[in-house]
Amino acid sequence: MDVSQERLRADIEANAAFGALEYDDSKPPNDDDGEGQAQQQRQKHGRTVLTGTEANRRARDHLVERFEDAGLAVEIDAVGNITGTWTPESAEPDAAPVAAGSHLDSVPEGGIFDGPLGVYAALESVRALQDAKAEPERPITVVCFTEEEGTRFGGGLLGSSVATGQLAVEEALAATDADGVQLGDSLADIGYRGEGVLEPADWDSFLELHVEQDTRLEDAGVPVGVVSTITGIAHVTATFTGETNHAGTTGMAERADAFTAASEFALALEETGMEAAVAGASESAGNGDADADADGIDKPVGGTAVATVGKCNVTPNATNVVPGRVELGVDIRDVDGETMAGLLERAEQILARIESERPVETTFELELDVSPAPMSERCRDALESGADATAVDARTLHSGAAHDAMCVSRVTDAGMLFAPSRDGLSHTPLEWTDWDDCATATRVLAKAVGQLAGAASD
Amino acid sequence: MDVSQERLRADIEANAAFGALEYDDSKPPNDDDGEGQAQQQRQKHGRTVLTGTEANRRARDHLVERFEDAGLAVEIDAVGNITGTWTPESAEPDAAPVAAGSHLDSVPEGGIFDGPLGVYAALESVRALQDAKAEPERPITVVCFTEEEGTRFGGGLLGSSVATGQLAVEEALAATDADGVQLGDSLADIGYRGEGVLEPADWDSFLELHVEQDTRLEDAGVPVGVVSTITGIAHVTATFTGETNHAGTTGMAERADAFTAASEFALALEETGMEAAVAGASESAGNGDADADADGIDKPVGGTAVATVGKCNVTPNATNVVPGRVELGVDIRDVDGETMAGLLERAEQILARIESERPVETTFELELDVSPAPMSERCRDALESGADATAVDARTLHSGAAHDAMCVSRVTDAGMLFAPSRDGLSHTPLEWTDWDDCATATRVLAKAVGQLAGAASD
Repeated sequence: MDVSQERLRADIEANAAFGALEYDDSKPPNDDDGEGQAQQQRQKHGRTVLTGTEANRRARDHLVERFEDAGLAVEIDAVGNITGTWTPESAEPDAAPVAAGSHLDSVPEGGIFDGPLGVYAALESVRALQDAKAEPERPITVVCFTEEEGTRFGGGLLGSSVATGQLAVEEALAATDADGVQLGDSLADIGYRGEGVLEPADWDSFLELHVEQDTRLEDAGVPVGVVSTITGIAHVTATFTGETNHAGTTGMAERADAFTAASEFALALEETGMEAAVAGASESAGNGDADADADGIDKPVGGTAVATVGKCNVTPNATNVVPGRVELGVDIRDVDGETMAGLLERAEQILARIESERPVETTFELELDVSPAPMSERCRDALESGADATAVDARTLHSGAAHDAMCVSRVTDAGMLFAPSRDGLSHTPLEWTDWDDCATATRVLAKAVGQLAGAASD
Repeated sequence: MDVSQERLRADIEANAAFGALEYDDSKPPNDDDGEGQAQQQRQKHGRTVLTGTEANRRARDHLVERFEDAGLAVEIDAVGNITGTWTPESAEPDAAPVAAGSHLDSVPEGGIFDGPLGVYAALESVRALQDAKAEPERPITVVCFTEEEGTRFGGGLLGSSVATGQLAVEEALAATDADGVQLGDSLADIGYRGEGVLEPADWDSFLELHVEQDTRLEDAGVPVGVVSTITGIAHVTATFTGETNHAGTTGMAERADAFTAASEFALALEETGMEAAVAGASESAGNGDADADADGIDKPVGGTAVATVGKCNVTPNATNVVPGRVELGVDIRDVDGETMAGLLERAEQILARIESERPVETTFELELDVSPAPMSERCRDALESGADATAVDARTLHSGAAHDAMCVSRVTDAGMLFAPSRDGLSHTPLEWTDWDDCATATRVLAKAVGQLAGAASD
């Protein structure tokens, strides 16, 4: 069995044309993009494919055509999740299918691999198994989830959240974009508001190939990564209320400056995140994760815990006014639930200390708290066997970003495979994964899908 | 000689009706205004009088009528500065006049005393001298400067900057508001685009009574303050450029976080400002300023130097993204030019240190650099004598805010008098100065104006 790099590339390039951004490569690149000389000289390949738009309709139509070309039975569910199922004669039609896929929507001015690689690699896996006359015991379902990015209708992971019972279908359909358009109406407009809801709980297993969006594979010179755990994510809104005052008439000792209080929090949180990352790295020094990270990578590696202040809104935000109020958006993640809980507790303690030392009042609001999602042993084994059978090095690593596989892992066995991202870039037209790496990862995926579906190995 | 509190109050209340905000005092106050229970229970007296608006026209018309009632010769200059001059028979008509005044424009939802108190107290001083049949040797000019707040046409101190040659009249007239309307056209619309330019350089001296906008007088229980120096002001834009990155996939050790770098700057600047304030307070422990501040005030007092980060704009400002760029608006002030220069130098050193310790690039752009404006000894003496003659305590203090007297002090002798601001509040409908305090300060002003104009003391 072999996958066709040409066929895969043709699909991804065809998909890249929908919502494609045009670049005049003869013009000098913008010096302000802050990405450095080497990247500025690179060609950009960008697309904007928001859910329910004409570009999304065309991308979906193309996928459905390719499913039909491969003889897959196509279904569309109520929130527009698309599946194409191959039920070979060798399979028991009622057997729980093995599923694989990802998403086709993008962020604004996103890259061409984030999402589409996982969808078309899953399709290519099926075609490769078909070409090799493999005889799987289970049906194989290729999946395209709706609104993974959450750019237009908020939240993200929308299609997989509905399919796994974490979001009510009515609530999802009523989600509105910035202009008040509902998801349900926009799906109906492009002909992708179907019936029923996809049931991943009925799947035997699910595999998702995705670009890594980090530099670990590139740094290690390894073409594929098998994900151990998808990190948990907590979002906190922390507010600091002091007193808005004239910057000229309010002496240094009389101030209740919300911004310097918030600055103290940001620095203390950074230090705490750093400590947790270092502790995590040394604690897990014996397992595959840390081993993998530790050897041969020429930069400090600090484990999996991260703590970020990504958002800061100051009120009134005028140079000559002592800030009276600051709102921070805090992001805390780790693959270990206890570490995450510890980081959240520590963040609250920092706030309490600042409140006791400065004339400000603080609040701490947990907006989102998603626990880490370990990938199933069976799926990881299948992916590692796939790499062995393909004779490529695979590295075990965690995913710091959320993916549809995170939702699916709550209801059935799930696994994830990463392909290298050049310079770790994603959500930008500079995102790139070499075609050879796309093909290599797809080979590993095809082997793993075949193994999980009980196809005789060739 | 005595001033009439009733006449002064009637003028200020009449002026307060132009652009007045309406409040329903029967409704419970908004809990969110953050000003505390006591202030919430207070009545609000607010107005919005932007330059060139109908409210501004009515306020100007009323002032001109009151000037005419008092027999003053009215002039309007090219940028709408209004003067009313009393040339008594006792005066040499060509003698350099003594001037006094302030402004009538307000910030949006500002208070009723900030500006109008100084204009109408100057007029009341003239009327009191007239009533007392005083025989000044010099003419006395009451002044209303245009666009002191700078809310509509930017910058602030516009009328006094033009009059003192710091801003070209053509440039001022071409200044536009947010809708692209030019100052010149808006003044013409309301009938206040006059001829020529007011020449404060030809004045013998200038006095401005203004609300303190701070709590020093209130805390000390003293009704008037004589200003020693108007603080210098520097505005700096500091930028921090790191690398925008995914908050989940970018390890703690791999980040170039612009926000934590900016936070470190804000904290170091705060500490530097605090040190400069303390050093300033102990250095000047022998003079009136620090003595005055030191006794009987139940809070730490840290000198005159202040350093503030008032503005912070984060890019891209999303909770789940490591900030790639932060722009801070920095305000540095002191009454001592060397201290200000030292603070600016220190701020640059802090940036350089952060750049050497963190993977960010920084810039430091001086946007505004106005040197401190010491008030003239002669004017301070006149004001202190006025307080003595009125038998009220006066306190010597600096002004942390800019005023028209700052511009005038560059071309002739200038002095400033402060009246207490309840809770130090200004630029809010909660701004308040008791009528008794208004009258007391006006009495001191009238005495000082009379003395400078060579009127025989009664």
